[in-house]
Amino acid sequence: MSSIAERTEKLRDLMRENSIDIYIIPTADFHQSEYAGAYFKAREFMTGFTGSAGTAVITQEEAGLWTDGRYFIQAANQIQGTGVKLFKMGEPGVPTIREYVKETLQEGGTIGFDGRVVSMQEGEAYEKIALDKHGKICYEQDLVDAIWMDRPSMSKEKAYLLEEKFAGESTASKLARIRNTMEEKGATSHVFITLDDICWTLNIRGNDVAYTPVVLSYAMITKDHMHVYLDQDKLSEELRQKLEKDTVVFHAYNDIYEDIKKLNSKERILIDPVHLNYAIAKNIPEDVKIIEDSNPAILFKAIKNETELSNLRKAEIKDSVCHVKFMKWLKENYNKMEITELSASDYLDELRSSLEYYVQPSFGPICAYGPHSACPHYSSTPETNVQLEEGNFFLTDTGAALKEGSTDITRTYAMGEVTAEMKKHFTLVAMSNLRLANAKFLYGCTGMVLDILARQPLWERGLNYNHGTGHGIGYFLNVHEGPAGFRWKYVKGETNTLEEGMVLTDEPGIYIEGSHGIRLENELIVRKGECNEYGQFMYLEPVTFIPFDLDAMDPSIMTEEDKQLLNDYHASVYENISPYLDEEEKEWLANYTRAV
Amino acid sequence: MSSIAERTEKLRDLMRENSIDIYIIPTADFHQSEYAGAYFKAREFMTGFTGSAGTAVITQEEAGLWTDGRYFIQAANQIQGTGVKLFKMGEPGVPTIREYVKETLQEGGTIGFDGRVVSMQEGEAYEKIALDKHGKICYEQDLVDAIWMDRPSMSKEKAYLLEEKFAGESTASKLARIRNTMEEKGATSHVFITLDDICWTLNIRGNDVAYTPVVLSYAMITKDHMHVYLDQDKLSEELRQKLEKDTVVFHAYNDIYEDIKKLNSKERILIDPVHLNYAIAKNIPEDVKIIEDSNPAILFKAIKNETELSNLRKAEIKDSVCHVKFMKWLKENYNKMEITELSASDYLDELRSSLEYYVQPSFGPICAYGPHSACPHYSSTPETNVQLEEGNFFLTDTGAALKEGSTDITRTYAMGEVTAEMKKHFTLVAMSNLRLANAKFLYGCTGMVLDILARQPLWERGLNYNHGTGHGIGYFLNVHEGPAGFRWKYVKGETNTLEEGMVLTDEPGIYIEGSHGIRLENELIVRKGECNEYGQFMYLEPVTFIPFDLDAMDPSIMTEEDKQLLNDYHASVYENISPYLDEEEKEWLANYTRAV
Repeated sequence: MSSIAERTEKLRDLMRENSIDIYIIPTADFHQSEYAGAYFKAREFMTGFTGSAGTAVITQEEAGLWTDGRYFIQAANQIQGTGVKLFKMGEPGVPTIREYVKETLQEGGTIGFDGRVVSMQEGEAYEKIALDKHGKICYEQDLVDAIWMDRPSMSKEKAYLLEEKFAGESTASKLARIRNTMEEKGATSHVFITLDDICWTLNIRGNDVAYTPVVLSYAMITKDHMHVYLDQDKLSEELRQKLEKDTVVFHAYNDIYEDIKKLNSKERILIDPVHLNYAIAKNIPEDVKIIEDSNPAILFKAIKNETELSNLRKAEIKDSVCHVKFMKWLKENYNKMEITELSASDYLDELRSSLEYYVQPSFGPICAYGPHSACPHYSSTPETNVQLEEGNFFLTDTGAALKEGSTDITRTYAMGEVTAEMKKHFTLVAMSNLRLANAKFLYGCTGMVLDILARQPLWERGLNYNHGTGHGIGYFLNVHEGPAGFRWKYVKGETNTLEEGMVLTDEPGIYIEGSHGIRLENELIVRKGECNEYGQFMYLEPVTFIPFDLDAMDPSIMTEEDKQLLNDYHASVYENISPYLDEEEKEWLANYTRAV
Repeated sequence: MSSIAERTEKLRDLMRENSIDIYIIPTADFHQSEYAGAYFKAREFMTGFTGSAGTAVITQEEAGLWTDGRYFIQAANQIQGTGVKLFKMGEPGVPTIREYVKETLQEGGTIGFDGRVVSMQEGEAYEKIALDKHGKICYEQDLVDAIWMDRPSMSKEKAYLLEEKFAGESTASKLARIRNTMEEKGATSHVFITLDDICWTLNIRGNDVAYTPVVLSYAMITKDHMHVYLDQDKLSEELRQKLEKDTVVFHAYNDIYEDIKKLNSKERILIDPVHLNYAIAKNIPEDVKIIEDSNPAILFKAIKNETELSNLRKAEIKDSVCHVKFMKWLKENYNKMEITELSASDYLDELRSSLEYYVQPSFGPICAYGPHSACPHYSSTPETNVQLEEGNFFLTDTGAALKEGSTDITRTYAMGEVTAEMKKHFTLVAMSNLRLANAKFLYGCTGMVLDILARQPLWERGLNYNHGTGHGIGYFLNVHEGPAGFRWKYVKGETNTLEEGMVLTDEPGIYIEGSHGIRLENELIVRKGECNEYGQFMYLEPVTFIPFDLDAMDPSIMTEEDKQLLNDYHASVYENISPYLDEEEKEWLANYTRAV
């Protein structure tokens, strides 16, 4: 195996051959996905850095790696001795990638990248930098591919149908809705590449990306057909025939790039600049009229239909039952047998894996004990794995992908007696979670309006959590799904009005570095309430029913209203979960859902 | 005096002479001001409708008036028999002005308007409509002027200096800051027309707009000079000399339109598309590079300096003392003598008019009794004036413009015993006001994040108020001032981060049509609090100290926390105001600020 330094030199040779001065390697697949398969880990191959976010920028003189605060330590360790230089994003005096490229590019120089892994907006920004220097962009070559001898192949996993009893709407109906929106916007065709949107439209699922049941594919919808570009070995004859009846025409995966060049000049093509890659955008002929707007499927998919919602409620109850059993097991055994972060995580997985319609975890599990729990994104490994002990918290942030929907649930459990400060923090997080969950608001609100309901108990005490309060969640698709979320800061793609039928998480936390961390996460469905002279009121329906650990709570710091919210929630936990428990479990749950 | 119908016909003659097919007359002066002087009331002249918001659109076949829900009844009455047709904005099936213009304009037609009274963005929208139909825009003629024989002249009021003990910063310093921002943005010149920004920069005030102490003028800042366009009769020799020392060069008011055409092609001009009129934007030569961004003065002006803040605190105490005396007088006399909406309003004005540094009311007073108070913008007239009686609320929303700053204060007083429902509503509004006022939040929040703190007690009970919770307020300038505000809906120009030193109102309400209305309004200063590992925390400092009428409150519906907020506020009212009262008044105030 070649060293990183050797790879860098080989890339520089190729850059010289192709007259490329700066070569950019982001962390992305061809579909702007949040998670990417092994084939797409070119940045990791070129730098040795394994984190989930980062971009390498290579020149003849320098090889730089940009990553964010979560990864400064890990990245520094992993790139040591490789010749790669770490650029700590957001630190004072550290240039952004664009600033660096702008600064470094010589007059008339060329910026290169694989246009398939760069977003349309990012690519256009590089293009502007190049043009301002009378230089150019080279986007049609994947230089890393030429030096990556043992590159993993692309996933060959099969696609499969998600039956209508799970999806709740036929592909024909979804296509009719998308075509209707296209017509409203004056579009004759619509190209989109986001895997969850394609799978949602086709009612198919696959196994091409870790934890995300999607199929590597591109799509173009016209008035009469839906052109789908994928490795056709993924299709059973039965599935192919079913989809062909829905006007789907299949093409080879990579043919989209040439097909798009052949678009008729009379076409008016709808593309979403936030969710398209640069190469496809660039290949659209200049005389084709471009209509820039959201992929219609994004909002359609986020608003779950009645079948999906009723399935999800079942899935959440089933996963909640697993969690309750897990919590009881943990409370009763943490000091009787050796339980580690990983073994506990495995046990929870085991409980869930026997659930009807269970497919896989919906994301990589976070199971963190003690100081580990203070790192919101900690992922336990055999090297970091520790045993659960008396006196601190064990935090699990895990989820199940069922055909009935995806769960994303966090609980934090006190192992024996914890300190008064820990209890105070836990209680505040519970208050925070419940205040948001009980919001009543007028239709038209975005999550930005509601976010402070969760933060207020913390902000009043000079505390905060440095992440969003909640995100949309896909139906047996991406665990993070736009276009709405609960955040007080503006985040592009999460600013949609909260619409009836959207499903979002509610996951405030407190993290005390080196000591302990707490996060409590439920899923909520956006619902319509009273409609009166003031407008349409909305509320949130919790669908996750697992106790907030009373061993970790200090009711004395709660207001009467907060106590009422907690007692009401715990009553609903007992009501919803006890039917699935035996007598002993019921008794245990009654105690852990008692009124405070 | 000609009739409206005759005016319409004369305008149509002029439109034919000038080959204009659609002529648009908005309600605006040349400066995109919120309030306009008598000279600018062309829409009123052409339709007879006197409301503060509306646009007339005239064609050969039709004369339309667009106005919003506040004015449907008034407008319908005032335009009866004039031939003008009312278009109720926002009602189902009613086209917007742009939709109407788009629908009505023939292929190759011309849209006309006085480009000085139309915003750059609005004018560009009309331009697009015209171009799409291969037509054109005619923006350099004020057709109404030609038929308005007795048009009032423009204000001839004098400008005067606002001394640095009030303004807190010299013009030289303000210009240096603006030039610094221009340089950062790469601009060599900066044109702005907003009167408050010009007066703030020059530390001058005037009397050209009702209730707003501004001077009709335009400004262009270059590296070496500030060119100011105004009627030079407004200047005393002393003021002229003072400003000329600050590099100001004076020009005739209307010369800006020709001067802007002569800009050198090497100039890079900073303009604010939200706050510029169409005629100026259109007159910029095509080869001048345009940099579109906010007027730097908008944010500078909104962040009050220490002198302004300390002055404002004094002004608010003084006005609060007047309000307390007024409240006592009202409570003791409403059933002993004849007090009407207007006489009460006069009495409050009288109390304030003797204050040191008092100049004028900061806006047209709202004094409304009983069902009148249910209309948030009711303005009492001799025709509508009623006597205050037992059993309902009297609402005053008034303000004083002092050289020490502008106040904007609303109180609602129970006249004798009011119903349990009225008390409930009053109590909810008080809770709403105090919850927002006591917000603690991280730096970076906009008012949109905080708004729900005020609305939550209402939304939880299916109530709402159909206006913003609060707006920025100018320092002895516009009573409504951007760029921040408390609103849950997105409003352009009010989305800025809450910065230390900003001053905003906090004015929730409840309005029950035909019955009663309540609003309670204080001013708040944005302040820096604790700075820790989570960031810079901020809080709001109330500067208005007048009781929330305890006769109108029902503490039984308040949480313990809400009671504490009320008691704390009332304690600060007594502490801040009692030193200015005699013994009898003190005793009265002690009772009206007692703990609940």
